[in-house]
Amino acid sequence: MVEPPRGGPSTVGPVTERSPGSTGDYTLGQIGEFGLINRVARTVPQGPAVLIGPGDDAALITAADGRVVASTDLLVEGRHFRRDWSTAYQVGRKAAAQNLADIAAMGGVGTALLVGFAAPADLPLSWAKDLSAGLADEAALLGASVAGGDTVASETLLIAVTALGDLQGRAPVTRAGAHPGDIVAYAGELGWSACGLELLLRDADGPKQAFARHRSPEPPYEQGPAAARAGATAMLDISDGLLADLGHIAEESSVVIDLDPAAFPVDDQLRETARKLGVDVMDWVLTGGEDHALAACFPRDAELPPGWHVVGRVTDGGAAETALVTVSGRPRAATPGWDHFHR
Amino acid sequence: MVEPPRGGPSTVGPVTERSPGSTGDYTLGQIGEFGLINRVARTVPQGPAVLIGPGDDAALITAADGRVVASTDLLVEGRHFRRDWSTAYQVGRKAAAQNLADIAAMGGVGTALLVGFAAPADLPLSWAKDLSAGLADEAALLGASVAGGDTVASETLLIAVTALGDLQGRAPVTRAGAHPGDIVAYAGELGWSACGLELLLRDADGPKQAFARHRSPEPPYEQGPAAARAGATAMLDISDGLLADLGHIAEESSVVIDLDPAAFPVDDQLRETARKLGVDVMDWVLTGGEDHALAACFPRDAELPPGWHVVGRVTDGGAAETALVTVSGRPRAATPGWDHFHR
Repeated sequence: MVEPPRGGPSTVGPVTERSPGSTGDYTLGQIGEFGLINRVARTVPQGPAVLIGPGDDAALITAADGRVVASTDLLVEGRHFRRDWSTAYQVGRKAAAQNLADIAAMGGVGTALLVGFAAPADLPLSWAKDLSAGLADEAALLGASVAGGDTVASETLLIAVTALGDLQGRAPVTRAGAHPGDIVAYAGELGWSACGLELLLRDADGPKQAFARHRSPEPPYEQGPAAARAGATAMLDISDGLLADLGHIAEESSVVIDLDPAAFPVDDQLRETARKLGVDVMDWVLTGGEDHALAACFPRDAELPPGWHVVGRVTDGGAAETALVTVSGRPRAATPGWDHFHR
Repeated sequence: MVEPPRGGPSTVGPVTERSPGSTGDYTLGQIGEFGLINRVARTVPQGPAVLIGPGDDAALITAADGRVVASTDLLVEGRHFRRDWSTAYQVGRKAAAQNLADIAAMGGVGTALLVGFAAPADLPLSWAKDLSAGLADEAALLGASVAGGDTVASETLLIAVTALGDLQGRAPVTRAGAHPGDIVAYAGELGWSACGLELLLRDADGPKQAFARHRSPEPPYEQGPAAARAGATAMLDISDGLLADLGHIAEESSVVIDLDPAAFPVDDQLRETARKLGVDVMDWVLTGGEDHALAACFPRDAELPPGWHVVGRVTDGGAAETALVTVSGRPRAATPGWDHFHR
């Protein structure tokens, strides 16, 4: 169900009868489920696509072109975020961003989020409120909003976000449409999130942008629809690293993608930080995940929208080719894509 | 993202190189995320509403009338299900049912599910496969299917289901439209899930139906659209108990609902089981949750579809009335609605 913004029958008395903890904050256990929803859901402003928001059995959202794009992601504490590394607000922005980037990667525009929130009873209420604010602010970049959700107690802190979106009449851009002869391009940032993660793991200082992007990526949402309009033949968002993700396009499209490392506009600050840490900056650029840049293939004669960088081409691989993605014609010993049950 | 049905770059070798556990089963940790998705997602048949299913950044689902109904629910092990009480298949059916019931409660028909699955690495692969089969079979009752999802490792076993649905051109039936003079009715079963839970808690024997309904409710999906067509003014599905849930309608509609306990067609077997356990059967009927029956208000002269039982009426409560829901004109000391952070 979509949790009600107001409490129904409940065991929970008014919060004023309870005492906040030593931090002056209440825990979720103190205010209870209905109290939480009370405080958080009713403060959420709704976007124009939301016909019925939180408070009924289900939300109702416009799907103007007769189809809806939908994507779900789970974020688990300790695996996808750490409370000592990121604020709740940053986690909220990241949770919304990685789902809304999936909508953009189909060529769509996000319209609404549904948010499942599983949290321990001792979680401070302020954390839940800040998470909600982060989700709302990220969605608002697109005019979208949190239209509903569910809250449960759980030993593991987990956020389940479903993003819905609108293709505005366009055909979806899948991973399967790339053709030999296409060019390969990306929009957004590459390597910054990996740089931030490395700095955090080493407890080292570095560019603010690296920390910021790791905590809350800034996907180039508008480039998804722009790429679709420009004739993109295949597209996805970069969550596991460019090489790993382009591998999905190559596999689904039965092609080979070759990248030109010299074509990447690597930021001087990123390069310098890599040098200081003894890291090959191209490792971050080619295999760092979670920047949520967009990568796409276009016909060779397509006019790319501003902000797209051509970094490779699509081939048929020839008879001897076994790698799906090559760099300067050779397979690259790449950091494998994130595998949640092995790390 | 919607997880790919085929593995991309992965650290996981072929399963044949690994050894199953002593049960002859693999764990999720052994086969890895991509292996899991490989095995489960590609076996899922898609319903007619799914234009793009698992394997791309997002799913694409028809929303024929230009709107989409959407609801999210989380199920946490130990709180919403127990692996020693329910099979994975039953948990899958229940997870799908409670979300699809929310869609029906708006007057809609479910079209697709998105499933987030968080599980410990030592979970047997067979459990994940059986869960998936349960989700798929329940969705198939409506011609719907699992169109996408996400899989992550987590110490807590958790299932996050988002259901999407279609109103087929009808107005949504919210909780806010009941008027004084309306009649109150329900369709489906009441009390069986609570009976099953009581039997399980006491480790007692009882009617098969009680155990079955607690493990996997059977919401009367078709009654949601039928009630909408018959002019229902307010509707919801019973997840927290009839009294608690009707309280939501009463509150949202600013009315009072009075129930006639003699009007409930209580099953003889349910009544007899209650007597043996020393329970008032009306406690199960009026306050037992998780049957996912539908409750609705209709204009007094509405012709109710077959399967709906009239059990009460809507009043304005008069000046002195403080309870939102009464039984024979009096407030009933009701089991409060389930509060996830207090129990």
